[in-house]
Amino acid sequence: MSRPFDLTLYLVTDPRLVAERGLLATVEAAVKGGVTLVQLRDPDAHGRALVEQARALKALLAPLGIPLIVNDRVDVAVAADADGVHLGQDDMSPADARALLGPERILGLSVGNPAEFAGSSSGIDIGAVDYLGVGPVKATGTKKDAGAAIGAAGVAAVRALTRRPIVGIGGIDGALAGEVIRAGADGVAVVSAICAAPDPEHAARALLSAVTAAR
Amino acid sequence: MSRPFDLTLYLVTDPRLVAERGLLATVEAAVKGGVTLVQLRDPDAHGRALVEQARALKALLAPLGIPLIVNDRVDVAVAADADGVHLGQDDMSPADARALLGPERILGLSVGNPAEFAGSSSGIDIGAVDYLGVGPVKATGTKKDAGAAIGAAGVAAVRALTRRPIVGIGGIDGALAGEVIRAGADGVAVVSAICAAPDPEHAARALLSAVTAAR
Repeated sequence: MSRPFDLTLYLVTDPRLVAERGLLATVEAAVKGGVTLVQLRDPDAHGRALVEQARALKALLAPLGIPLIVNDRVDVAVAADADGVHLGQDDMSPADARALLGPERILGLSVGNPAEFAGSSSGIDIGAVDYLGVGPVKATGTKKDAGAAIGAAGVAAVRALTRRPIVGIGGIDGALAGEVIRAGADGVAVVSAICAAPDPEHAARALLSAVTAAR
Repeated sequence: MSRPFDLTLYLVTDPRLVAERGLLATVEAAVKGGVTLVQLRDPDAHGRALVEQARALKALLAPLGIPLIVNDRVDVAVAADADGVHLGQDDMSPADARALLGPERILGLSVGNPAEFAGSSSGIDIGAVDYLGVGPVKATGTKKDAGAAIGAAGVAAVRALTRRPIVGIGGIDGALAGEVIRAGADGVAVVSAICAAPDPEHAARALLSAVTAAR
């Protein structure tokens, strides 16, 4: 049984988008605005830099009770005592990751469509997974290897297949956040809507309002 | 105290160079020719593929008593029950890796020159490290981020600084293997000299002879 987490407003960091303001300053502002979960994602960074970033974020977030999730790298997550790991379909299998993470850390998995959810295309067993990241809801330039956009209808299609918590991701702004919640998602995950915003705190607050209003 | 290992002839795999023959067939032939240690290195591969490759190599090598080392990814090494990890200067710190690996797994670190060994440029503490990979001895096209070639003289310079086992790496063929051993290395690591050879078994046997003759 993993530690509790709240998918309401899930921030995924992007190293290019936060470069000017800085990773920590961006996350700090976003959390003030109501972000409930933070994922460190920097696919081009080496292990040493990732561990350093994860430790700095953990020091910022732990006192606030906001869990820190590390993208892909289970070793980095454990070394930095992060709260969990988010896996893509090409990453280590959820069962392997769970064995390394122990029962308490949070484990998420990206699914691009109902077929990926069912594991029919990949053979991935999601038994060890605590939540699903479903998308891209809308096409985006942030993630180069993302699949085709599935829309809020795609979120609803995955929602119909599982009782696991799901968070919609991919090109979500305030208007789309409401649609995704109404499609049955437990929350929305955003990258550029917060990382690239002139005021991340304000952007987070606006997204949180949109999610709350749609529930 | 890590499990025993023998640096005499250390094969580092390269996904492009083994593509035609296949990873397992290349390693199997190389081991027949006398390779004493194998490192799985595929910096572009995702975690899932790496775990699968590491498990396949482990199944091949364990019955032969040849340790399997995984480049960079501590999580992959533990998931596949590999015998150790090899770290670059930008990877997770040796101390962090050791904490995840436990005391028995083998931990290697690349050092490009005496300054990197001393940690003066990087602040890396090598206390947790079992062996050092020193090079590139000669310039090579295999590793894009490798530093300047240090020659056998550079190997001797690191040898003078430590009693830890060291293996020379980078552009080593039969003639250079002898020089590196005479410079004080405990063994030689090769990529293309075996992976790109028309007959990996024969190539390994010739390198092994060169190392043995130079001792």
